[in-house]
Amino acid sequence: MGKREASPISTPSYPSLQDCNSSSADSAASPPRSLRSDAPSRAGISSKASVDVNGEPPSFHHSRQGRSNLGEDMSNGAVETLSEVFDPVAALAPEPVPPVAGGGEANGAHSEETISKGGKREIVLGRNVHTTCLAVTEPEANDEFTGDKEAYIASVLARYRKTLMERTKYHLGYPYNLDFDYGALGQLQHFSINNLGDPFIESNYGVHSRQFEVGVLDWFARLWELEKNEYWGYITNCGTEGNLHGILVGREVFPDGILYASRDSHYSVFKAARMYRMDCIKVATLISGEIDCTDFKAKLLDNKDKPAIINVNIGTTVKGAVDDLDLVIKTLEECGFTQDRFYIHCDGALFGLMMPFVKRAPKVSFKKPIGSVSVSGHKFVGCPMPCGVQITRMEHINALSRNVEYLASRDATIMGSRNGHAPIFLWYTLNRKGYKGFQKEVQKCLRNAHYLKDRLRDAGISAMLNELSSTVVFERPLDEEFVRRWQLACKGNIAHVVVMPNVSIEKLDMFLDELTEKRSTWYQEGGEAQPPCVAADIGSENCVCALHK
Amino acid sequence: MGKREASPISTPSYPSLQDCNSSSADSAASPPRSLRSDAPSRAGISSKASVDVNGEPPSFHHSRQGRSNLGEDMSNGAVETLSEVFDPVAALAPEPVPPVAGGGEANGAHSEETISKGGKREIVLGRNVHTTCLAVTEPEANDEFTGDKEAYIASVLARYRKTLMERTKYHLGYPYNLDFDYGALGQLQHFSINNLGDPFIESNYGVHSRQFEVGVLDWFARLWELEKNEYWGYITNCGTEGNLHGILVGREVFPDGILYASRDSHYSVFKAARMYRMDCIKVATLISGEIDCTDFKAKLLDNKDKPAIINVNIGTTVKGAVDDLDLVIKTLEECGFTQDRFYIHCDGALFGLMMPFVKRAPKVSFKKPIGSVSVSGHKFVGCPMPCGVQITRMEHINALSRNVEYLASRDATIMGSRNGHAPIFLWYTLNRKGYKGFQKEVQKCLRNAHYLKDRLRDAGISAMLNELSSTVVFERPLDEEFVRRWQLACKGNIAHVVVMPNVSIEKLDMFLDELTEKRSTWYQEGGEAQPPCVAADIGSENCVCALHK
Repeated sequence: MGKREASPISTPSYPSLQDCNSSSADSAASPPRSLRSDAPSRAGISSKASVDVNGEPPSFHHSRQGRSNLGEDMSNGAVETLSEVFDPVAALAPEPVPPVAGGGEANGAHSEETISKGGKREIVLGRNVHTTCLAVTEPEANDEFTGDKEAYIASVLARYRKTLMERTKYHLGYPYNLDFDYGALGQLQHFSINNLGDPFIESNYGVHSRQFEVGVLDWFARLWELEKNEYWGYITNCGTEGNLHGILVGREVFPDGILYASRDSHYSVFKAARMYRMDCIKVATLISGEIDCTDFKAKLLDNKDKPAIINVNIGTTVKGAVDDLDLVIKTLEECGFTQDRFYIHCDGALFGLMMPFVKRAPKVSFKKPIGSVSVSGHKFVGCPMPCGVQITRMEHINALSRNVEYLASRDATIMGSRNGHAPIFLWYTLNRKGYKGFQKEVQKCLRNAHYLKDRLRDAGISAMLNELSSTVVFERPLDEEFVRRWQLACKGNIAHVVVMPNVSIEKLDMFLDELTEKRSTWYQEGGEAQPPCVAADIGSENCVCALHK
Repeated sequence: MGKREASPISTPSYPSLQDCNSSSADSAASPPRSLRSDAPSRAGISSKASVDVNGEPPSFHHSRQGRSNLGEDMSNGAVETLSEVFDPVAALAPEPVPPVAGGGEANGAHSEETISKGGKREIVLGRNVHTTCLAVTEPEANDEFTGDKEAYIASVLARYRKTLMERTKYHLGYPYNLDFDYGALGQLQHFSINNLGDPFIESNYGVHSRQFEVGVLDWFARLWELEKNEYWGYITNCGTEGNLHGILVGREVFPDGILYASRDSHYSVFKAARMYRMDCIKVATLISGEIDCTDFKAKLLDNKDKPAIINVNIGTTVKGAVDDLDLVIKTLEECGFTQDRFYIHCDGALFGLMMPFVKRAPKVSFKKPIGSVSVSGHKFVGCPMPCGVQITRMEHINALSRNVEYLASRDATIMGSRNGHAPIFLWYTLNRKGYKGFQKEVQKCLRNAHYLKDRLRDAGISAMLNELSSTVVFERPLDEEFVRRWQLACKGNIAHVVVMPNVSIEKLDMFLDELTEKRSTWYQEGGEAQPPCVAADIGSENCVCALHK
């Protein structure tokens, strides 16, 4: 490299590459996960890490271990790579379920908050990724000729794909529809599609997908009954961005407004309050998870001098509870808040798209005095990457936005550059499934959720299912490995399964059979362990603990 | 649908579908763009819009025009669709360059801010997308059998792909490396990959790519010289998210700190100040676009009682200027700001990844008293969707974050759900190109940028190229159609080309030939129009207007 003479180019001073593990103790306690072979005999898999064999600047040259440098001085095991005799197919074993964080194996740099499980149950965090990451390695000089690097990358990807298939197969806990086929859109992955700026005003960057984005937005504006010339919106990166935007709009409309949100609101709502330096009042919830409007009323009356910005949950994160929008509005009116003194943001993360199909569900509509609605795109619709839809009233956005000449567009979104693929995914699914297709899927989800709840109760397991929801809440499984295998979201003594379109009866049966079998070992007759009482979480009528059954 | 009897499912009340245009005047002034055929004879393309043929609830049934409903009552042209005899290949013509916004054709709902071009030049916004969007249409009952809907979607996508190819070919203005091949990663598009929560702490959702993400973060932490156990970071959705995060960390460290940012800072910096309710002081810039440390000093001295949070630009948006980090630090020290009284965020959107390879560039390093660095992933690296990398010190993040049990992870990112594909794209490119590969590409970009600047000057066109930059700033082309064809970013009297790895000499020659040819018609001998003086923008030594040449 010293031979290169181009004048403006310097040879950088570059620190040594280290392997992904920072201490060999970590490595001993926790063999690398993602590329772990389950038997030492698996040909060509070495559990040794790559090390800095030639780390001085300027070379930045690091060999991939298990290849020509297999015999060299090595430290601890973090990234595994492949020998020259590696057979990618032979090595593709399903990844074993990883152990749970807490204790020795999560003692890496980032695990100081990992909690012990003794005494009162505290938050159990996932394991530290630093012990298992896939280090970036510098290509070797002869890689172009040998193809070794390509082979290495291909094998990592093949193994990763296998892992993803396994994980997708067993996933039940988060509200993501994992059943989609966007094969027809693969051709677009070659383009850097960016809807930077406003969806409605083209920027000078031509490689965008605004025509799809606005088509999708129009569909959602119709769904929530706002006229085309009266709405503004955009496709966000996730539900959090929708909440950040909705609450920001609320704050800009009422700069001294107080944010009200029920305790069961998504954590992003409280994050927004902190980011935006807003006063925030947490409102109590009913056992169902719905906002408690009696408490809401009391808190409103305590703060009548300040406008109210309210986050209304159209499906809470944990219990899938739907706040009663009409009752919220009625409570505001009863407390003397006229429409020019409150702003309602509806966090419809998951159910915003399911509600229109559910009888008796409070209707989300801009014909009511609401300011914004957000919904996630990767949840009920299903999408390779997270995304969401945010719709608000045009009158609000004009105050918030400003024109940015560099973009030749307007800046009213939280993000600047915006993923142009996500709108196409959504457009594609909306076109193919349509309103009727979603209706069928909602029907299936609700039916299957009822099936799950009934079978849990039949098996003597505490469980709750809100009427308008496909989120089945039940007793938290005792074993964290089981929780992780099925990727259940947990909070305190409860866990949940969100029944999405990809969750079939067969999958639920597999889960139920495994749960009841495992559970019989956790709570053996005459043993000390007892299923937890979850009456405080889901009501005594749903609890079948020793006391309540 | 009335025949469906499933009990919890309602038949929604759904408003009528309208086509994408809200008035026929719009349509007359502006034929739909994205699906426009360039000749009426092109078989099967109708410029008629889809209309609500059966819009009452509950059917939500809308036919795609140009098919069986072609003869029905139609309104104005917004979404075009295909007849049954449509031949997708025959219809694939490159899309003509769209007209510029302003005046009649942008009179849609969202164009009220579009500016007239008379008098002083004001911001020219792109055209209103609502006139050209691709409406979502409900599948018809027999679609499954006829395959018509699939054919329609396929033809829309094929045409769109053609447009993207054309747009990509002519793009020069924004700092996006459009040259990448992620074919090997296409297999992962079937998975809903989501790194929700913290990169270092696995959530319970198993379909993630943290092992890739942390590998990429380690690489960048090394680049910026921060030890593995001393950094925290994550892969963001774009440069804006990096700035939002860096400035938020700064504010949490110094809650009453004042944000200082030069006038040439990215607009997201000022957006952050507004979002976070921070006092923000704009600092003057030199002609080059660098922060003016004399002005900075004066402003610091005026506000010695408050801590300072400084946004340092590693490559400004418009001029590619690199703030002198060392001089900024020196200025802080001279004004009596000790290290416990300031926080520096480095916005390295584009050049954060090019700087290490450029001689004489101020070195970005955590060995200096900086708090965070962000860089975009879709710019120099190139990526189908926007993304970025954010690195900060571990000590700062612990104060900001909180554990979220629902995630079994920590909430220290701006977004909650996070795109799990982006880290894999970055990991793939870093592994394949490596440090040396980037070095070569930076070399090529700088060389080609010099070539462009020299040829512009040879042609008598005012132009500037900062020493450390591949952003060539020059006289704004008179014709907005030319600006849009080459997708140039403009500000006032100047435009720029950002020479990225995909910008070859051939492409620059094509651009230069076209520019000089067009320019001779804009500024004819003896004509009234004169090339603008841009001395105020890029200095009289770079201006070759009538006065300065």
